[in-house]
Amino acid sequence: MVNQASHTTAASGDPLASWNEGAAKASIISFVRATTDPASPDYVRPQERIATFDNDGTLWTEQPYYIQFAFAIDQIKALAPRNPDWQDQEPFKTMLTGNAKSVLTGDQRALVQIVAATHFGMTTDEFDAEVRKWLASARHPHTNWPYTDMVFQPMLEVLAYLRANDFKTFIVSGGGIEFIRTFAGQTYGIPHQQVIGSTGKLKFEMRDGKPVLLKLAEINFIGDYAGKPVCIQHHIGRRPIAAFGNSDGDLQMLQWTTGGAGARLALLVRHTDAIREWEYDRQADVGRLDHALDEANAKSWTVVDMKHDWRRVFQFE
Amino acid sequence: MVNQASHTTAASGDPLASWNEGAAKASIISFVRATTDPASPDYVRPQERIATFDNDGTLWTEQPYYIQFAFAIDQIKALAPRNPDWQDQEPFKTMLTGNAKSVLTGDQRALVQIVAATHFGMTTDEFDAEVRKWLASARHPHTNWPYTDMVFQPMLEVLAYLRANDFKTFIVSGGGIEFIRTFAGQTYGIPHQQVIGSTGKLKFEMRDGKPVLLKLAEINFIGDYAGKPVCIQHHIGRRPIAAFGNSDGDLQMLQWTTGGAGARLALLVRHTDAIREWEYDRQADVGRLDHALDEANAKSWTVVDMKHDWRRVFQFE
Repeated sequence: MVNQASHTTAASGDPLASWNEGAAKASIISFVRATTDPASPDYVRPQERIATFDNDGTLWTEQPYYIQFAFAIDQIKALAPRNPDWQDQEPFKTMLTGNAKSVLTGDQRALVQIVAATHFGMTTDEFDAEVRKWLASARHPHTNWPYTDMVFQPMLEVLAYLRANDFKTFIVSGGGIEFIRTFAGQTYGIPHQQVIGSTGKLKFEMRDGKPVLLKLAEINFIGDYAGKPVCIQHHIGRRPIAAFGNSDGDLQMLQWTTGGAGARLALLVRHTDAIREWEYDRQADVGRLDHALDEANAKSWTVVDMKHDWRRVFQFE
Repeated sequence: MVNQASHTTAASGDPLASWNEGAAKASIISFVRATTDPASPDYVRPQERIATFDNDGTLWTEQPYYIQFAFAIDQIKALAPRNPDWQDQEPFKTMLTGNAKSVLTGDQRALVQIVAATHFGMTTDEFDAEVRKWLASARHPHTNWPYTDMVFQPMLEVLAYLRANDFKTFIVSGGGIEFIRTFAGQTYGIPHQQVIGSTGKLKFEMRDGKPVLLKLAEINFIGDYAGKPVCIQHHIGRRPIAAFGNSDGDLQMLQWTTGGAGARLALLVRHTDAIREWEYDRQADVGRLDHALDEANAKSWTVVDMKHDWRRVFQFE
């Protein structure tokens, strides 16, 4: 059980056992020690120990495309028999018969249509049930593992290590908040109220005397790029002292985090392992890491070289 | 220390000592026992023990007008020397020289102008400092007490009693999220991330190389009426099993809470005590309790009669 990882390295073993010794691992441990030792000049009170994590590409795989997009593909296929028009109508036609990924990386309006068709027009309870059903049976196209096994073991250890040191761990994702909440508790040990993400508009209404929340076909908030510090402020109301990301969409979260006084940890996972996971950065069409890598280099943020820093990538490899 | 109130009534005294014996007190205790006793058919796992509290009129006084409005009045006065136009310009003129409360209960557009002038156009850090400074010196016009002493002792005991029984307590307010966060920790024992309220739009930007969040002059979300279940879903992602309010603005939160399966607690504080606090309900222009009272009566929700159910109203009376 990852959640039971201890913060004492001597008696109970290494809390970051899947990390090779090196600068990345050392930076995490020295940051935690500096902020939790009452004698340290960088000591931080427990209520201010806020750590935020991007999800896609930081806590689990985002290749060959975001896992939530894989859900959308499968939902479009499942809904197609009831929507015969889609056979000839873009972007549905491409989703059903062509290169679905091109919809993700192409025109934003097409992607919005796909999100609307698969994520909206139902109640929050209905959506929750759909995602849970899908996650229980869907498999990653490369590994054939359940998607919730495509999480990075070293990052699970960081989550547990921080919590063992009285940090509160939050997800701050460009992905859908209600999608992530279906598995974040069991997979990451992160409760619903500590999952922050993109949201759609909701409408409260009574149906046959029962209250429901209807998911309207309208984006409410996108938790990516400059939206990350904004939703951190709305949901948490404190500036994180540690933030973890992997792409340009995380840059502003890391800037906001490091902009405060005292010890700060800003960490980027760099996907350098074409064998065990994927290798991509500045040219990637999903999860591009370019400007944020420049800033990490300029500011001496921690950059994890997955190939060299991680002894193990997945729990089940 | 309210936070240390125990959930065992026999050994350590009554956790609801400021409540007179009666149906209201009994309903709270029987609900907590039913949901926390593993042998109970209504047992609820700790992670699902979510309780939401309205703030104005439920946890602290909202008369003669919302305390946040008192802040706005004082800010307008403080800003007036720098804004000489306000002497002849409504609604500022009325705020400065006339019946300020008429701005609160009148045209919504006037109120939005006041909010914009006092709450927007600064960074989140600047606003936080302004509110803290004001709370440290401002006094309630009737009691001359600091506003943070105008909290209801019996409700502090409910908060502590629930937390002692592994509930998570949240504020869900129509008031401003950043206003409430300045005092909710110390006053209610509720951390920033468990305060939900109305929000304005925020903009992330760099100022002299430092990241700031600027409060734009645009409402983002109003956490009142049907907005309450919506922001509960966005922030918490679970339906509460207990909800506490005092006005029609809390009706949908109580409907949403009681709409789930199993034991539920819906409680309304009814202001019936003209001597120790205020007496108002169906005709009130601030904190009106009318439709919600009808529904409480129809659904047998718990209605607290402040005059008879509360042994003590304020800690300092």
